[in-house]
Amino acid sequence: MQTLLLTLDLVGTFVFALSGAIAGVKRRLDVFGVLVLSFAAGNAGGITRDLLIGATPPGAISDWRYLGVSVLAGAITFWWSSFVERAWNPVLVFDGAGLALFAVSGTEKALAYGLNPIMAALLGTLTGIGGGMVRDVLLAEIPTVLRSDLYAVAALAGAVVVVIGHTLHLPSAVVAAAGAILCFGLRFGAIHERWHLPIARPPKA
Amino acid sequence: MQTLLLTLDLVGTFVFALSGAIAGVKRRLDVFGVLVLSFAAGNAGGITRDLLIGATPPGAISDWRYLGVSVLAGAITFWWSSFVERAWNPVLVFDGAGLALFAVSGTEKALAYGLNPIMAALLGTLTGIGGGMVRDVLLAEIPTVLRSDLYAVAALAGAVVVVIGHTLHLPSAVVAAAGAILCFGLRFGAIHERWHLPIARPPKA
Amino acid sequence: MQTLLLTLDLVGTFVFALSGAIAGVKRRLDVFGVLVLSFAAGNAGGITRDLLIGATPPGAISDWRYLGVSVLAGAITFWWSSFVERAWNPVLVFDGAGLALFAVSGTEKALAYGLNPIMAALLGTLTGIGGGMVRDVLLAEIPTVLRSDLYAVAALAGAVVVVIGHTLHLPSAVVAAAGAILCFGLRFGAIHERWHLPIARPPKA
Repeated sequence: MQTLLLTLDLVGTFVFALSGAIAGVKRRLDVFGVLVLSFAAGNAGGITRDLLIGATPPGAISDWRYLGVSVLAGAITFWWSSFVERAWNPVLVFDGAGLALFAVSGTEKALAYGLNPIMAALLGTLTGIGGGMVRDVLLAEIPTVLRSDLYAVAALAGAVVVVIGHTLHLPSAVVAAAGAILCFGLRFGAIHERWHLPIARPPKA
Repeated sequence: MQTLLLTLDLVGTFVFALSGAIAGVKRRLDVFGVLVLSFAAGNAGGITRDLLIGATPPGAISDWRYLGVSVLAGAITFWWSSFVERAWNPVLVFDGAGLALFAVSGTEKALAYGLNPIMAALLGTLTGIGGGMVRDVLLAEIPTVLRSDLYAVAALAGAVVVVIGHTLHLPSAVVAAAGAILCFGLRFGAIHERWHLPIARPPKA
Repeated sequence: MQTLLLTLDLVGTFVFALSGAIAGVKRRLDVFGVLVLSFAAGNAGGITRDLLIGATPPGAISDWRYLGVSVLAGAITFWWSSFVERAWNPVLVFDGAGLALFAVSGTEKALAYGLNPIMAALLGTLTGIGGGMVRDVLLAEIPTVLRSDLYAVAALAGAVVVVIGHTLHLPSAVVAAAGAILCFGLRFGAIHERWHLPIARPPKA
């Protein structure tokens, strides 16, 4: 079980790292810059969560495998970026899976550190979306998650399921699976059906 | 007393969260993005201070009420942004009050964690201005506090008063009030009299 | 020895702070903004490293001298920016020295906190480049280190030497000197010979 979770976590890191590397290649960074964006996109969410709950050093810093899969994703993208680009539609599916997993595992880790349920759900969401936010900030852009389709809400929904299950003392494997499936389903639906949140109408000044 | 301080802290969070939400609405973020900016503007200063002094999890993470008032401010702004815009001049007064309070309470918390007086004053200032800086970075803009009127200096002046009072062992309620009043007064004067700091003249290259 | 290390650390902070102040002056920040950029450029790398390894409060927060040299660098640049600009070529040499020192000392601190060698080398590199990255993010620009010449790689090379020496139990003063000289030499060569890393070719979309 522990091995399965670690594997899924590393797969999620890999896919998020791909998204960072692609963004870096498009902005014509050098190879080091692409690797930095890979690592940031894959790990910044989890690192921020760990800093906030006091789990230092963060898992992505103490365990070299997170760096390993991030560098692998960055290197593949750097040398075969057109291949990764063409494969991005299937990658979007993995990205949804990564989001689902990060949201669920991030929430569980926050609960394990004694945070109250509401903030644990928030930290789970942050685990899912933080990497992409740091990626965009490093590229001097407004994070796409702040104005895009149902990305953060999908993560939040999965996190809320975990929190509710935890509060009701339901078996955690079932709850984790339910949360991940809900998150993935919402994200998948958002891509296919173009679901999105209402956008603010700025006041007529 | 403790209740009063918490109330003032939440009021400060609410007002700062309004400023984040307004900025988000103007940039046409979706409702989630507006709420993220609310939370960031209201709490990033205090969270950064808590991380730096080793107080994990930060208050804004462990206590759900900070999230509550931030979300409230964000939701109000999202649905009634023109109302909030029209009310912004009175809100600026509250914003000065929030700044004063955050600077004073941030300094006191840093002193309580054993930091030396100079760095405690700096962390108090950071508590006051950090939220606005993160808000602007998330919007891919240079933080306005780095080139605007007497905002950070007002916070610093209030923080210095607290530090001096602490060093001289003066009664802390009096010192806190004096620091907050000085900060608020400077900020109020800066708005009305357009006080500002000298701006660098770049070298003729 | 301890005094020598602290002196070198403060010299590195001073030089990095100069780079932040110059960037702030060019963007026409006010005097407070210039000082913030000085402090951020000089200390953000070390602060981030300390947060990640759990060394709170970070050295740059608990010891006021880091603030002191940062403010000094910022004030000098603010009032005599054309002088600092003209002196920038010699300053670049100091900057290379600062990078070398930060990379080596950052790696050693991470090893002392029990991180594994690979991540210690990474944190040493981060110590060297983090300040410049935060400086650029605050100016809403893509960090130059992500697409410039051999800057981060020089820091990484120095960090790797330290890690290898540590693993082989070589005398730490010798190892530190070797790492710093390699980093400085690579950086110096990069400036003079215009060495740079390959840049990604974005896919033809």
